[in-house]
Amino acid sequence: MVDHLKGVAILGSTGSIGTQTLDVLAGLPDRFRVVALAAGNNLSLLQQQIQQWRPDLVCAADEGARAGITAGGAAWATLDEMVTHPDVDIVMVGTTGTIGLAPTLAALRAGKAVAIANKEVLVMAGALVRAAAEAGNGELRPVDSEHSAIWQCLWGERPEHVARLILTASGGAFRDRTVDELRRVTPQEALHHPTWTMGRKITVDSATMLNKGLEMIEACFLFDIPLNRIEVLLHRESIVHSLVEFTDGSVKAQLGNPDMRLPIQCGLTYPERLPVHGTRPLNLAAIGALHFEAPDFSRLPCLRLAIEAGTRGGTYPAVLAAADEVAVASFLNGSLGFMEIPRVIEATIDAHRPGGATDLEAILDADRWGRDHAGTLVAASGGAVLLSASPLPSL
Amino acid sequence: MVDHLKGVAILGSTGSIGTQTLDVLAGLPDRFRVVALAAGNNLSLLQQQIQQWRPDLVCAADEGARAGITAGGAAWATLDEMVTHPDVDIVMVGTTGTIGLAPTLAALRAGKAVAIANKEVLVMAGALVRAAAEAGNGELRPVDSEHSAIWQCLWGERPEHVARLILTASGGAFRDRTVDELRRVTPQEALHHPTWTMGRKITVDSATMLNKGLEMIEACFLFDIPLNRIEVLLHRESIVHSLVEFTDGSVKAQLGNPDMRLPIQCGLTYPERLPVHGTRPLNLAAIGALHFEAPDFSRLPCLRLAIEAGTRGGTYPAVLAAADEVAVASFLNGSLGFMEIPRVIEATIDAHRPGGATDLEAILDADRWGRDHAGTLVAASGGAVLLSASPLPSL
Repeated sequence: MVDHLKGVAILGSTGSIGTQTLDVLAGLPDRFRVVALAAGNNLSLLQQQIQQWRPDLVCAADEGARAGITAGGAAWATLDEMVTHPDVDIVMVGTTGTIGLAPTLAALRAGKAVAIANKEVLVMAGALVRAAAEAGNGELRPVDSEHSAIWQCLWGERPEHVARLILTASGGAFRDRTVDELRRVTPQEALHHPTWTMGRKITVDSATMLNKGLEMIEACFLFDIPLNRIEVLLHRESIVHSLVEFTDGSVKAQLGNPDMRLPIQCGLTYPERLPVHGTRPLNLAAIGALHFEAPDFSRLPCLRLAIEAGTRGGTYPAVLAAADEVAVASFLNGSLGFMEIPRVIEATIDAHRPGGATDLEAILDADRWGRDHAGTLVAASGGAVLLSASPLPSL
Repeated sequence: MVDHLKGVAILGSTGSIGTQTLDVLAGLPDRFRVVALAAGNNLSLLQQQIQQWRPDLVCAADEGARAGITAGGAAWATLDEMVTHPDVDIVMVGTTGTIGLAPTLAALRAGKAVAIANKEVLVMAGALVRAAAEAGNGELRPVDSEHSAIWQCLWGERPEHVARLILTASGGAFRDRTVDELRRVTPQEALHHPTWTMGRKITVDSATMLNKGLEMIEACFLFDIPLNRIEVLLHRESIVHSLVEFTDGSVKAQLGNPDMRLPIQCGLTYPERLPVHGTRPLNLAAIGALHFEAPDFSRLPCLRLAIEAGTRGGTYPAVLAAADEVAVASFLNGSLGFMEIPRVIEATIDAHRPGGATDLEAILDADRWGRDHAGTLVAASGGAVLLSASPLPSL
């Protein structure tokens, strides 16, 4: 059996996706081996993971951190060395932001299977990612619950039979608040998601619904479908993870308890389906009712902004994601109000002047420019929570 | 294009499935040609259909009826001749009861695609049907909305990954009535189904939920799954047509507006999906909520009886179906009360003594015996509606 163990590299091993990936792998010791672990700043957890999993390769974002870590039998490696290593079959991209971009491209060019939980990679550089997968015969496997759902609904179906993709959205922490109430919400409130346990950034993105807009752009690239055939449906129970409507009117949905370990395992074991360690079957009778409603775009400016950036294309989605990262970080550290997040993003998108190319260089330039510009806007607000008297353009 | 027209034979062309099949075919003139039409007693409609569709072959159940029909250019044929004719690619079995049994076996042995909307064929002779399909390289395509849903959910999936099939049930016309109220319902009330427009027999079977029990047995044979891995889930909106739970806990559902033309067309065009003439996309936001509850077996004796007959196997399901046909017909003509339907079925099952074989002969014998026995029970009730003083064993 040992000969058939698949080698896994986890980028972002100490984050929400990374730790849940290791939890899944703990239930499948006869199928997988952890070959490489890469983490950011949580060095004490990385140290524990090294001791428990004994990977061959380790990476810490802060190179200076190496001194504080006992790598044991593991060698230090760059992300690029990790994801292209011959012993690695599957790369789990569990980082957020731009850090996952270059390794994703490298892994796909090296013909690896890439299970991707990082939205920004596809949002910023979807076309490059598709090209890399094609060039290297690599395989993209979505891990976001919504995209995993769509992926599963498409198995055995022909691309030309797809009419619409329907992404479900819980509506996030503030789905029942008025716009007025939203102006006063705190980071602590925003971090309490009603149905999912996720990282901090994505939980705030879920509250603004910018997250759902990023997912729309992501779905475009993953499934090669234009944005105008992708819809968002509010579904507060987070049981129907997404749906596909086919040309004959038939709709397929993928359902499950809201537990990221299910799509994570699906991304690891595909095309196999194995019992997921420690989970219970879905019980629809006990849930009783599933609710659906159309999103109210007037309450959700971030969703509208994402559709706008996605429609403009080119480097706009990279600017959108960059401005959002800065805005969310500023909200979390108390220097920006919740309803100022879309205003920072909109002002940054409006100020963006794209160049001609959309190569990796141009995308990374746009990302840097977007961060700088958004940062300047936040700083101009004087570090105080912006209210209606703010210098930012109104939505 | 004419060279590529697929030839269709419709058994039961004047019934609910038959007329909706012709409605679907009217929207696909460049894909299909009606080669053969077979009908029962609605001769005036058959005459109209012959004039409109100009089939090559015609059959009327009552041979004496031929005199009253102008076949035009069509030749009279037996069902067997029809379904094995070289110009026929797809046979739609839209009859109810045993009449579809022999032609289904013949069509499958001749390598045809058989779109099957007749429950009794699979309930009575599922093992024979599977064997015939295998022997002749024929293809079974389910048309019942529930089985079509499961079929679609299984595309691209491996059989060993299926954990459970979950058949949804609207609960029928009387889902909100007490057992006491059920004793007094009339045929007219039973024929008013809350969500589907179907034939009379199946609408009553839906009200007793015997229909759902037959579907469980049918699903066993169609998908090669034991009865104890098939569940029933009440779902009053009839939007989720059925679900499949996989071994990793992932659940796929097929959804659509309750319109039989969708599964009928899917059965005809598979593996193609084409727009269905005159239908609208599903709008979940407008529907708002989907409800699910576990069935209450104490209110649904017919469901329990079907599971019992299906578990016993052999000729028991044939006896179940036969007793039900007699009991429902007696209810519809006013000679049996609604709550006596399960009592006639149970008494007939209890009295059945199966022989050794389960070949076609044994099944047809069991069918005849079941009808006779159920008929005797109904006659013994004196043609009056049986109430609690009835001679039938109690449930």
